[in-house]
Amino acid sequence: MPSLLVLSGPNLNLLGTREPEIYGRTTLAEIHAQLKSEAKAAGYDLEARQSNHEGELVDWIQATPGKFAGLLFNPAAFSHTSLSLRDAVAAVPLPTVEVHLSNVFAREAFRHTLVVAGAARGVVSGFGAYSYSLGLQALIQILRGS
Amino acid sequence: MPSLLVLSGPNLNLLGTREPEIYGRTTLAEIHAQLKSEAKAAGYDLEARQSNHEGELVDWIQATPGKFAGLLFNPAAFSHTSLSLRDAVAAVPLPTVEVHLSNVFAREAFRHTLVVAGAARGVVSGFGAYSYSLGLQALIQILRGS
Amino acid sequence: MPSLLVLSGPNLNLLGTREPEIYGRTTLAEIHAQLKSEAKAAGYDLEARQSNHEGELVDWIQATPGKFAGLLFNPAAFSHTSLSLRDAVAAVPLPTVEVHLSNVFAREAFRHTLVVAGAARGVVSGFGAYSYSLGLQALIQILRGS
Amino acid sequence: MPSLLVLSGPNLNLLGTREPEIYGRTTLAEIHAQLKSEAKAAGYDLEARQSNHEGELVDWIQATPGKFAGLLFNPAAFSHTSLSLRDAVAAVPLPTVEVHLSNVFAREAFRHTLVVAGAARGVVSGFGAYSYSLGLQALIQILRGS
Amino acid sequence: MPSLLVLSGPNLNLLGTREPEIYGRTTLAEIHAQLKSEAKAAGYDLEARQSNHEGELVDWIQATPGKFAGLLFNPAAFSHTSLSLRDAVAAVPLPTVEVHLSNVFAREAFRHTLVVAGAARGVVSGFGAYSYSLGLQALIQILRGS
Amino acid sequence: MPSLLVLSGPNLNLLGTREPEIYGRTTLAEIHAQLKSEAKAAGYDLEARQSNHEGELVDWIQATPGKFAGLLFNPAAFSHTSLSLRDAVAAVPLPTVEVHLSNVFAREAFRHTLVVAGAARGVVSGFGAYSYSLGLQALIQILRGS
Amino acid sequence: MPSLLVLSGPNLNLLGTREPEIYGRTTLAEIHAQLKSEAKAAGYDLEARQSNHEGELVDWIQATPGKFAGLLFNPAAFSHTSLSLRDAVAAVPLPTVEVHLSNVFAREAFRHTLVVAGAARGVVSGFGAYSYSLGLQALIQILRGS
Amino acid sequence: MPSLLVLSGPNLNLLGTREPEIYGRTTLAEIHAQLKSEAKAAGYDLEARQSNHEGELVDWIQATPGKFAGLLFNPAAFSHTSLSLRDAVAAVPLPTVEVHLSNVFAREAFRHTLVVAGAARGVVSGFGAYSYSLGLQALIQILRGS
Amino acid sequence: MPSLLVLSGPNLNLLGTREPEIYGRTTLAEIHAQLKSEAKAAGYDLEARQSNHEGELVDWIQATPGKFAGLLFNPAAFSHTSLSLRDAVAAVPLPTVEVHLSNVFAREAFRHTLVVAGAARGVVSGFGAYSYSLGLQALIQILRGS
Amino acid sequence: MPSLLVLSGPNLNLLGTREPEIYGRTTLAEIHAQLKSEAKAAGYDLEARQSNHEGELVDWIQATPGKFAGLLFNPAAFSHTSLSLRDAVAAVPLPTVEVHLSNVFAREAFRHTLVVAGAARGVVSGFGAYSYSLGLQALIQILRGS
Amino acid sequence: MPSLLVLSGPNLNLLGTREPEIYGRTTLAEIHAQLKSEAKAAGYDLEARQSNHEGELVDWIQATPGKFAGLLFNPAAFSHTSLSLRDAVAAVPLPTVEVHLSNVFAREAFRHTLVVAGAARGVVSGFGAYSYSLGLQALIQILRGS
Amino acid sequence: MPSLLVLSGPNLNLLGTREPEIYGRTTLAEIHAQLKSEAKAAGYDLEARQSNHEGELVDWIQATPGKFAGLLFNPAAFSHTSLSLRDAVAAVPLPTVEVHLSNVFAREAFRHTLVVAGAARGVVSGFGAYSYSLGLQALIQILRGS
Repeated sequence: MPSLLVLSGPNLNLLGTREPEIYGRTTLAEIHAQLKSEAKAAGYDLEARQSNHEGELVDWIQATPGKFAGLLFNPAAFSHTSLSLRDAVAAVPLPTVEVHLSNVFAREAFRHTLVVAGAARGVVSGFGAYSYSLGLQALIQILRGS
Repeated sequence: MPSLLVLSGPNLNLLGTREPEIYGRTTLAEIHAQLKSEAKAAGYDLEARQSNHEGELVDWIQATPGKFAGLLFNPAAFSHTSLSLRDAVAAVPLPTVEVHLSNVFAREAFRHTLVVAGAARGVVSGFGAYSYSLGLQALIQILRGS
Repeated sequence: MPSLLVLSGPNLNLLGTREPEIYGRTTLAEIHAQLKSEAKAAGYDLEARQSNHEGELVDWIQATPGKFAGLLFNPAAFSHTSLSLRDAVAAVPLPTVEVHLSNVFAREAFRHTLVVAGAARGVVSGFGAYSYSLGLQALIQILRGS
Repeated sequence: MPSLLVLSGPNLNLLGTREPEIYGRTTLAEIHAQLKSEAKAAGYDLEARQSNHEGELVDWIQATPGKFAGLLFNPAAFSHTSLSLRDAVAAVPLPTVEVHLSNVFAREAFRHTLVVAGAARGVVSGFGAYSYSLGLQALIQILRGS
Repeated sequence: MPSLLVLSGPNLNLLGTREPEIYGRTTLAEIHAQLKSEAKAAGYDLEARQSNHEGELVDWIQATPGKFAGLLFNPAAFSHTSLSLRDAVAAVPLPTVEVHLSNVFAREAFRHTLVVAGAARGVVSGFGAYSYSLGLQALIQILRGS
Repeated sequence: MPSLLVLSGPNLNLLGTREPEIYGRTTLAEIHAQLKSEAKAAGYDLEARQSNHEGELVDWIQATPGKFAGLLFNPAAFSHTSLSLRDAVAAVPLPTVEVHLSNVFAREAFRHTLVVAGAARGVVSGFGAYSYSLGLQALIQILRGS
Repeated sequence: MPSLLVLSGPNLNLLGTREPEIYGRTTLAEIHAQLKSEAKAAGYDLEARQSNHEGELVDWIQATPGKFAGLLFNPAAFSHTSLSLRDAVAAVPLPTVEVHLSNVFAREAFRHTLVVAGAARGVVSGFGAYSYSLGLQALIQILRGS
Repeated sequence: MPSLLVLSGPNLNLLGTREPEIYGRTTLAEIHAQLKSEAKAAGYDLEARQSNHEGELVDWIQATPGKFAGLLFNPAAFSHTSLSLRDAVAAVPLPTVEVHLSNVFAREAFRHTLVVAGAARGVVSGFGAYSYSLGLQALIQILRGS
Repeated sequence: MPSLLVLSGPNLNLLGTREPEIYGRTTLAEIHAQLKSEAKAAGYDLEARQSNHEGELVDWIQATPGKFAGLLFNPAAFSHTSLSLRDAVAAVPLPTVEVHLSNVFAREAFRHTLVVAGAARGVVSGFGAYSYSLGLQALIQILRGS
Repeated sequence: MPSLLVLSGPNLNLLGTREPEIYGRTTLAEIHAQLKSEAKAAGYDLEARQSNHEGELVDWIQATPGKFAGLLFNPAAFSHTSLSLRDAVAAVPLPTVEVHLSNVFAREAFRHTLVVAGAARGVVSGFGAYSYSLGLQALIQILRGS
Repeated sequence: MPSLLVLSGPNLNLLGTREPEIYGRTTLAEIHAQLKSEAKAAGYDLEARQSNHEGELVDWIQATPGKFAGLLFNPAAFSHTSLSLRDAVAAVPLPTVEVHLSNVFAREAFRHTLVVAGAARGVVSGFGAYSYSLGLQALIQILRGS
Repeated sequence: MPSLLVLSGPNLNLLGTREPEIYGRTTLAEIHAQLKSEAKAAGYDLEARQSNHEGELVDWIQATPGKFAGLLFNPAAFSHTSLSLRDAVAAVPLPTVEVHLSNVFAREAFRHTLVVAGAARGVVSGFGAYSYSLGLQALIQILRGS
C-alpha cells in the first residue's frame, strides 16, 4: 500500500487544551487516528508526526521521496514566515496539501500571509479537525489523477 | 430535504474554455451536476447559479435565509476586492464556505488577499473542480455540527 | 415642490435584521418614511431607493439632473472602493451629502478610507438612522444657501 | 437644565478671517451664539470654548463629568494626529460628537485620517458653520436615546 | 465583413456634458458614429455599447468570441480596480486595446494604476475622443498582423 | 538626599476611574505615595507631577539638571508621537526610565511605536501601577552604577 | 513645412536585435524612415534621434522651441525614473506625446510607473513599432487642433 | 519701524548646552541679540521668543497680524509633526521663513519630513546659528519685494 | 515551593563575551545564579535554561503547565519574528514576562517590533542583567495578585 | 583669491523662460553675474556652470579639489534621485551648500525627498534667485569658520 | 594548519537533485570535497557541515572561536529572515563570507532582502557551486590581510 | 585571445582618495593593472574603463558584442537606481558579473536594493579591490562553462 505523511507544526501537539474556542477540543492523536482510518479505507498507509522544530519538519519533508506518495501539512505558525519550509516543499517531488484548523483569514492580519502555500498544491482552512480530513481527500484525489 | 446554494462569480461560466491550463477542462455545468449528485447522497437539495454581476450575487446571498441552509461560494475575481460581498456574507445567518479552483497563493500577488473569506467559515483553494466537492463536504459537516 | 433623491447601497435593504448591534433595529422602509415626512415639512418631495448594484446606483445618479435638486447617499460598502460612484457624483451638478449609519472610523481599518466622499459636499457618520435625517437637513441647508 | 460643552481646536478662533474660501465667513462667536440658542430651544445649557493648546483641551474634556451631559468637539488640526485627545474622549463617560467645517475627505491626504473620531460617537464634516448645528442635534438625539 | 466591438465603461454616457474641461465636448454617440465610419473604411463592421455595470461589461466581453474579431475598450473608473474585467479580457481569445480620453497619468494618483491593461495588448490615453480612433487603428493593425 | 522626578503624561490623572479594565483601579496619588515611600527607603527624595500638556512636560524635563538625579517618565499617549519629548529627554544629562501601566504591545497598533523610548535608558510596560515601582528600582540601579 | 522631433531613449538603438520577443524585429532606422514618410504625407518635416544619455535628451528637448512644432518621445527606461526629463518636457511649450513599444503595464512592476508621462499630452503603449505611428498621428491631431 | 517676530520651538532654549556637537555652543539669547542687531541695521524692529508649547506658538503666530511684518520660525521638533502650526502659518497673511540649526536631511529619517514648511515661503537648514541670520535676510528680501 | 522558569533565546549563552558594549560583561550563569537567589528569597524555586533553537524553547514553554507557576522569557532575536513562540506563550496558562538586556527601541529599526510581547503580560527592556531581576519581581507580583 | 564653484542642474539654463510662475523671471546668467559680484566683494573668485548631464556634474564636482574652496549646488531634478551626485559630494573634501529656487516642500510629493542634501552642509530652498545669494553667504561663512 | 568552517543552511543537502535548473547538478558532498582540496592547497584545514536547523547553525557558529579562523556560510532560506543567525555571525570574532548558489537578485522579491549579510564581510551570489570556491578565496584573502 | 571588458561607474575614479575607510586605498589604475595581469594569465585580453556618465556606460555595454566575451561591471551608485543599465545588460548576449568594493548590505538602506543585478549572472560584494579579482574569476568560469 502506498503511504502518506501527515505533518503538523508548532503548538499543534497542544490541540484540545490550547485556546479551544479557536482550535476546538479534538486532540491531535484523535485527528491522527481518524486520518489513518480514512486513509486505510482509501487504500493508503498513513504516518503522522508533529514537531515544534522548523528544522525537524524540513528533515522529514526531505526524507519523503521513496517512502511517501503525498504530504498533508499544517505548518501552523510557520505558515506565515518560513521560507525554509517553502523551499523544502518545493524541493521534493510529491504533492503537498496545506491545512489549517482555523480560518486564518478571519484572524490577526499577520496570519493572512501564507508563505509556504505558494509551493503547495492547495489549501484547506477553517474547518477544525475536519480540515485534515478534507485535505486528505484532496491529496488522494491528486494522487489518483496523476 | 434542506437545500444548499452554490454561487460562482465572474468568468466562471467560461470554465472548460477559459485558460484551461489554470482552471482545468471541466465545465461549470458538469461541476453543478456533480455537486447536486453529491448533495443528494448526503440528504440535501442543491441549487447552483453563476453571475458576472456583483450586485446579483449580493441579491442572491441576501435571499438565502428561509430557503437555504448553507452557501458554497466561489467569488472568483471579487474575492480580492469586494467589501459588498463580504458584508452580504456576514449579514446572513447561514454558514458560507469559500472555494477556489486554482491555488490563489501560487498566482499573482493581487490574488493573495482574500477580502470575502474573513466573513466565511473557511476556504478551500487549489484543487480544480474538486475544490467545490470538498467545500460541499465542509459545508455539510458544519450543518451537521450545528 | 422640488424633489430630493435618497440612495442607499448594498446590504442596507437588510437594515433591522443585519447585525443590529452595529446598524440598529430600524428598517430602511421606516427610515424612508421618516425622511419623506421630514422633507415634506421642509417643502421638498423625496424619493428613496436602495440597490445592491453599483451600476444601478450610477444609473440613478446620472438620471438626477432635471428631476432632483439634491442627493442624499449612503454608498455602504462601495464607500471605500468605488471610483465609479465617485465619478458619477462628480459628474452631476446637484449637491450630494454622504451618510453612514455606523461610525466608520471606529470600525475595521478598511472602512476608514472614504473614496466617494471626496466628491460629496460633506459626510455624516455614526448616528444610526438619525444620520439620514441629519444628512437631509444638511442637504436642504445647502440648497437654501445656493 | 443639563449642560453641553462645545470645544474647538487650534486656529478656529480665526474663523471668518482665516482662508474664508475654505472655512467660510462666519466667526466662532457667531457659531457659539447660534449653538446656545439652538441648545436652549432643546432644553440644554451650552458652554463654548476654543483653545490652540492640546493640553487645555484635554483638561477641559477631563473636567466634563458631573458638569456636562455631552461634548461637541471640533479638534481641527489635532483630529489627524492627537492620541492624547482620543484617549481623553475615551476616558470620560459622556457622549462626544466630532464636527468639521470643511469636508476633510476632499482636502489634502493628511486630513483624511481621523485619529480622534475612533473614540467619538460619530462625525459631521463639510457643512461649514452648519456642521456644528447638525452635530448639536446629533448629540441631543444621543442624550435623549440614552 | 468581420466585426469589432467598442465598449465604454461607467459615466462615459455623460460625455459632452460631464466635466468637459477634462473629457471634452464630443458626445459618446458622436464618437461611436465616427468609429463606425472609420471601421467601415477599413473593412470592418463596428458595434458600440456603453454600460455603467461592471457585470454587463463582463457579459459582453464573454459573448464576443464568434461574433467579434477585436475589442476596443475604455473601462473608465473600472480601469483602476476591476480584476473581474481583467480576467474577462484575459479569458477571451480576441485582441483588446484599452483607451482613455484623458491622460490618466496627469490626474489623481488613484488613476495611475491600470489593472485591466495588463490583460490588453496596449493602451492609448490622453487624446480625447481621438484616443478611440487611434485605438481602433491599433486594433485593426493587430488583426491584420495576426 | 538626592532627588528623583516622576512625570506622568496626559489622562494619567484619571487613573482609577478611566477604563479601569485597562489601567487598573489604583489612583495616581496612591502611586505617587507608594513611590515616595520606596524612594525614601532607598535614600532618595522623590517628587511626582502629572500634566496633560506636552509643553509643560518639556519644561519640567529641562528644569531637572541640578535638581534631580534621575527621571521616571510615563509619557502616555505622547509616547507614540512626541519628538519634542524625545528631544527633551535626550537634551538633559540625567538618566530616564520610561514606564507604561498597560502592555502597549498587546493593544492597538498605533501604541506599538515608542518614539520617546529611543532616548531613554529602558522601558517597563504592562504591570499596572507596579510598572512605576519597577521603573523606580531600575532608575536607582542605574544611579548606583554610574 | 513645420517640423516634428522624434526622440528615443536608452537601448532603443538596439531595436531589432535586443530581446525581439518583447520589442519586435523592426529596427529604429526603419521606424524613423516610416515616420518621416508618414509625417511628410501630413505636411510635416520630421527629424529623429536616439540617445542613451539622459542629459542629451534634455538638451534636445530644450532646443526644440523655434525649431519644432511637436515632440514624439519614447523615454524607454527613463520613463519610470527621470524627473529631469519630466521637467524638460514641462518646460517647453510644444506638445509631447509619449510612446512605448511594449505594453509596459503587462511587464515588471517597476515599469508600471510613468514619471515623464505626467508632463506629456498622452501615452501610446504596446503596439510595437506601430506605437510610434499612432503617437505621430496623435501629435499631428493635437497640432491641428491648437 | 516695521517689526519682525522670531519664534523658536521646543528645547531651543537649551541651545549652547544641549548636544553641542549637533546644535553648536551659541545660546539662543546670543542668537536673538545678533538678529536684533541685524534687523535694526536693515530698518526693522525684531522681537524674539521661544516656547516649548505648541499652543503658545500657535497663539503667538495668530497674534502677528497688525503687529509684525514677517515671521522667522524654527519649529524644532514640531517641524516634523505639527499640522496645527502649519495651519497657523497658513492662516496669517505675513510671510514666514523656516530655519533649522542642523541639516535635518543628514539626521534621523523622522527629521526628513517637514510638515510646517509646506506653508512657509522657504527653508534654511544646516548652518547653525547662522541659519537664523540667513533666514532673516530672506525674510527682509521678501518684504522688500512685496 | 512553587517554581519559576527562566528561558533565554539565541546567542544569550555568549553573554559576557558577545558585544559587551551592548550586552554588558555579566555572564548568563551569573544572571541565573542571581535570579535563583532572588527567587528563593521570595519563596520560589527557579530553573533557568538557554537555547539557540526556537523549537526547543517552544517545547520548554509547552511543558511548563503543572511544573512552573510563571515564565520569565528573553526571546532575544526571536522577539522580532517568531509567531511560533508567540503562539506557545499564548497557549499555556501561566503568566509570562518578557525581558531584554538592551533597550531595543534605541537600536536598529528591525528590533523595534516585538512579536512575542503581544502574548506576554509585560516587557522590561534596557537595564542589562538587571532587566531579568526586574522581570522576576514583576512575575512574582503577578503571581501574588492572581 | 580662493575660488568657489557654482553648479546648477538640469533645466536651470531655461530660467527666466521656464514656468516663470514657479521659478521667476531672472535668467541663470543674471544669477551668475550677481553671485560673482557678491563673491568678489567677499574676497572670492567664483565660477558658475550649468549642465543637464548628471555625469558632467559628477565630473565637475570631482575636479574641484585643489581648484575650488567651496561648492554651491542646485541639483534641480537630480536632488530627489541621484545617489551618484550624493556620492560625489561626499567624496570631495570641500564644503557643499545645496540651494533651490522654489520651496520644494510646497510642491509635488516627489520633490519632498532630498537625496543629495544628506551629503551637503545645509540647504536653502524657496527664495527664488536669492536662494543662491543666501547659499553663497552660507558657504563663505563655513569657509571662514573652518 | 589553521582551519576554516563551511556551513550550509536548509535544503542544501538536496543539491544535485533539488530544482537542478536553479541550483545545478553538483552535490554538496562534491562541493565540500572541492573546497577541502582548495583550502589545503592554500594551507588551511577545512570542515564542512550542513543543517536544516537554524539553532544548530547558531550553535556551530558560536563554537567557532578557538577552533576556526574563518567562516564560509550559505544561510540559504534563512538569509532572508534570520536575525538569530545575523546576531550569531556578529557575536563571533572570526570573519564570515556569505555565499549563494543562485543569483538571489534575479529571483522572487522575497529573496532580494539579505538579513544575515549585514553582519558578514561580503557576499558572493549566483555562480553555482563556484560561489563557494570564490567565497573561500575571499575568506583566505581576508585572513591573509588581517 | 578573447577579450573582457571591465566597467566601473561613478566616483570610482576617485578610488584611493575617496572615503578610504569604506573603499580602501588601492587606486582604480592599480586594480585595472592587476585585472589585466590576472586575465592574461587565464588567456584573456582585458580592457578597463570608468565613467561617471550613465549614458556612456550604456554605450560601452551596447558596443561589446563582437568585441568582448564577457563584462565585469561595478555600477557603483547606479546599481541602486538605473533601469537603463539593467536594460543594457539584459540586451547584450555576453555574460555580466556585478562587483562592489564595499559590502552594500552593511551600509545605508538605499544601497540594499540592487536594480542592475537582476540582469547579471551574479554579484560579488564587500572584498575591496579583491571583489574585482573574484568577479573576474567568476566571469572566466562562466565563459569556460558556456
